[in-house]
Amino acid sequence: MADMDSKHIVIIGGVAGGASAAARARRHSETARITVIERGPDVSFANCGLPYHIGGEISDRDELALQTPDSLRQLLNLEVLTLTEATAIDPNARSVTLRSLSDGTESSIGYDQLILSPGASPLRPPIPGIDNERILTLRNLEDMDRIMSAMPETRKVGIVGGGFIGLEMAEQLAHLGKEVVLVELQPQVLPQLDAEMVRPLQRELRHHGVELILGDGINGFARSDSGVVAQLGSGRSVECDLVILSIGVRPESDLARAAGIELGPRGHITVDSFQRTSAPDVYAVGDVCESPDPLVGGHVGIALGGPANRQGRTAADHIFLGDRALPYPGSIGTSIVRVFGLEAGVTGASEKRLSAAGIRYKAVTVNGPSHASYFPGAETITLKLLWSPEDGRILGGEAVGRDGVDKRLDVLATAIRGRLTIDDLVHLELAYAPPFGSAKDVINTAGFAATNIRDGFLVPVQTLEEAKGHVIVDVRPAAAAAALPVPDSVNIPLPSLRSRLGEIDKSKPVYTVCQMGKTSYFAARILANHGYDARSILGGAHHQAPRPND
Amino acid sequence: MADMDSKHIVIIGGVAGGASAAARARRHSETARITVIERGPDVSFANCGLPYHIGGEISDRDELALQTPDSLRQLLNLEVLTLTEATAIDPNARSVTLRSLSDGTESSIGYDQLILSPGASPLRPPIPGIDNERILTLRNLEDMDRIMSAMPETRKVGIVGGGFIGLEMAEQLAHLGKEVVLVELQPQVLPQLDAEMVRPLQRELRHHGVELILGDGINGFARSDSGVVAQLGSGRSVECDLVILSIGVRPESDLARAAGIELGPRGHITVDSFQRTSAPDVYAVGDVCESPDPLVGGHVGIALGGPANRQGRTAADHIFLGDRALPYPGSIGTSIVRVFGLEAGVTGASEKRLSAAGIRYKAVTVNGPSHASYFPGAETITLKLLWSPEDGRILGGEAVGRDGVDKRLDVLATAIRGRLTIDDLVHLELAYAPPFGSAKDVINTAGFAATNIRDGFLVPVQTLEEAKGHVIVDVRPAAAAAALPVPDSVNIPLPSLRSRLGEIDKSKPVYTVCQMGKTSYFAARILANHGYDARSILGGAHHQAPRPND
Repeated sequence: MADMDSKHIVIIGGVAGGASAAARARRHSETARITVIERGPDVSFANCGLPYHIGGEISDRDELALQTPDSLRQLLNLEVLTLTEATAIDPNARSVTLRSLSDGTESSIGYDQLILSPGASPLRPPIPGIDNERILTLRNLEDMDRIMSAMPETRKVGIVGGGFIGLEMAEQLAHLGKEVVLVELQPQVLPQLDAEMVRPLQRELRHHGVELILGDGINGFARSDSGVVAQLGSGRSVECDLVILSIGVRPESDLARAAGIELGPRGHITVDSFQRTSAPDVYAVGDVCESPDPLVGGHVGIALGGPANRQGRTAADHIFLGDRALPYPGSIGTSIVRVFGLEAGVTGASEKRLSAAGIRYKAVTVNGPSHASYFPGAETITLKLLWSPEDGRILGGEAVGRDGVDKRLDVLATAIRGRLTIDDLVHLELAYAPPFGSAKDVINTAGFAATNIRDGFLVPVQTLEEAKGHVIVDVRPAAAAAALPVPDSVNIPLPSLRSRLGEIDKSKPVYTVCQMGKTSYFAARILANHGYDARSILGGAHHQAPRPND
Repeated sequence: MADMDSKHIVIIGGVAGGASAAARARRHSETARITVIERGPDVSFANCGLPYHIGGEISDRDELALQTPDSLRQLLNLEVLTLTEATAIDPNARSVTLRSLSDGTESSIGYDQLILSPGASPLRPPIPGIDNERILTLRNLEDMDRIMSAMPETRKVGIVGGGFIGLEMAEQLAHLGKEVVLVELQPQVLPQLDAEMVRPLQRELRHHGVELILGDGINGFARSDSGVVAQLGSGRSVECDLVILSIGVRPESDLARAAGIELGPRGHITVDSFQRTSAPDVYAVGDVCESPDPLVGGHVGIALGGPANRQGRTAADHIFLGDRALPYPGSIGTSIVRVFGLEAGVTGASEKRLSAAGIRYKAVTVNGPSHASYFPGAETITLKLLWSPEDGRILGGEAVGRDGVDKRLDVLATAIRGRLTIDDLVHLELAYAPPFGSAKDVINTAGFAATNIRDGFLVPVQTLEEAKGHVIVDVRPAAAAAALPVPDSVNIPLPSLRSRLGEIDKSKPVYTVCQMGKTSYFAARILANHGYDARSILGGAHHQAPRPND
């Protein structure tokens, strides 16, 4: 190993994937020379924590510095060059041209292996008025500091983009007492999820005073006395003291492109399962590269910390172990966000995504308690499950609720990895004690509902909309039905259904509805077993067609 | 289906498995006659909630009655006979003899299919003095009421048995301000888990004033002025006002045995994967029956609510669907308990169990934060992973900590169901945002450690005990090493390890230790790469050999 150990590994980018690669490489070898090139002043900081320091939830800025250049030198014996930009790669000469951002001097560094981990930069589209010091993005500690120093004279903030960072910023800025308006081009926040699953988030945001403008984009910005005026596609304009742009990121692949390294259709670096690029001994990890999508096929760019860290580890393993290294299996995009009291997330493919890819799927949405309903603190989780009608394999899941959403997403992520089917969910044996779960967890319930659909015991209807014009029987107790009435329905509470069958026309399809989608299933079974063509409206009345401002 | 639908299904036992079977049967048929026989006055109550009502955490007793005989009649059109005991089964005549517990009258009822769901009764061994109205067990609402009505004149409670119910009762009674002493025959509480994993629980119990007497059994009981004196095997005696026996349960299989139905070695009813017993058209579900153990092989009696409910559903499905029903896949014994601020549980096989079964395994214990360590509220989770050295398949997991233990157990339970390996855990893509997880979750960390062991990068040592007499290098910062010193170790903090290698004898094995088992691994890699025979002590110094009273 002497020969191998004297190699020089150069890593461009010292956060997440780059830092993981460096650490793992050092565990493989004490004698390898490992150099980390970082454009910024900081390495290995907690970029996912930035919004929470702005909002004060993480009070100590030092908490965000997971490592410093000095600690990396000391712990991992790395050479760390901060404030240093890589300006060119020569794959034939195996060298990288560097420029010092402090004094502008140029130099060049040779490598045996090169790992690219430059990340992705926040999009800043070239629209009129974008060059305004009051329009900020959030990627690193410097960006964070900039936003924080603007806070004292900021009363109203416009956030453009309702993805994960946009929502986290909205929450944190509202915590700081700022007036927040969030503009999203799509007709929903969190476009990774299906529209009906984010409605509770939208209600929660509005409930906490965040103004939502959905389905509207930015045409340009103007300056005003007090700050920025965002001019929307709809003609509306929004004046605020500060704008935070969080409309997505763009892989920092210009350097790779210039070196002739192969890129994918959206500008990500193409890699194989050991994170190798098209150039020999050049690897790419993290937000800059694409990952195979094991569910939908093709490749996706996933800008998330977990995949970046594990891709970094994979590249380092391959450098030292060759093809004995464990390949990176692709990313299924498991992600989650907290928005005030709500938690929402997704794993695998959404309905939207499967539709777009032309993949056949079935979907069901169920509600269940976060733990035993008779134990204090139980909260309702709404869980959407997507599976393949061919073999029952789980393709994706989405969840929203006030507690325990992360756990159900993790179970589904693991189920997807294990290629589990809806039958497997029926009998998944999860940890149950009243403070933690239910004898039949909402995950089991999703399995019950999905297999009931497959086996013909449940004929589901996604929304009340689809039932419009048909016979709708609301089987909730009279009080509940009166409190949130379902239009054009007849209320026959479940306990009296058998004795009041005479009131329901047997010659037409009957749609049953309740609060959560469970009692309506029970009712539909009674009706079906009495010869009715009965369908149950999933998700219940609390998933009614969007109300104004929903 | 007319013929099929006119069948009469008789269910003995109206809680959990029996209630689930009845509900599922009714969804299959509106015309089937379904009769539920229940010895007690209540059906379908939340037996897992009983301790929490005693302790006041569930304040409303009505919360525990999930259904009443009347609600079952109304919602499911069942015939419900409470306070009625089944005294004999005649599988040839397909009839059950009943006795009313209110008036003693006998009758008989015919069945097309019979489902046995009588449960299991708390063990009450025939030891001297056991017949004492102050020695109680907890199985149903009546038992609960009895314990609660004894509370006002109870100052000190002896709990015999440190399993799930014993621990829950200890916690709840301590909440009520009672003096609690817990006696367990095994040298540890929660014998389902491995000894080192429950040490934090034992500390937590003692910290909250629960006196623990481990490795000591009950020889008998005597009466005293104020209550009961438990006479222990050690010769010690413990006086208390009330004793709660929670030393395990015994399947209520006498009725089945008398009917010639096949039982397993520990008295459970033997069933196939559709819950069929050896008698035609007789099913058994829940605590009374055995389940196949898909990991260790053979059969196990698992007295848990989740399996009972799903077995009930399986039996009902088989009655109506025959072999098209989804078979019950066996139970892996996933379970969890909350003990004051701690959570602990297991899924799959423990080390103890694998050893006893002669199954080869590897084990690793890792520590990791419940969510991003830089985000407020992160708590350390200790996770033990067991896997097969043949194919890396996960055989079991145990976890203990103050938060997020249920989530990690559920992930491992799902991984076991999916036959995932330690390689799969490395790349499991779990939901990450700072409030919920880490970019490298403790589950990933367990995968890292396990694959590092397999690949020879980590030579693990389970406990400090094994390092005794060897060279031990404590790589923690000097202050941490001084605060909780490791005997006979030399302290060389990790950052100075490379420069102080000269102090470590290269001719002998070197054992590295730190607080949590991570830095010691980093140190061992440095040493190994410098030619040392280096081993890392798993779990770190906070898993030191038991201290007195630990």
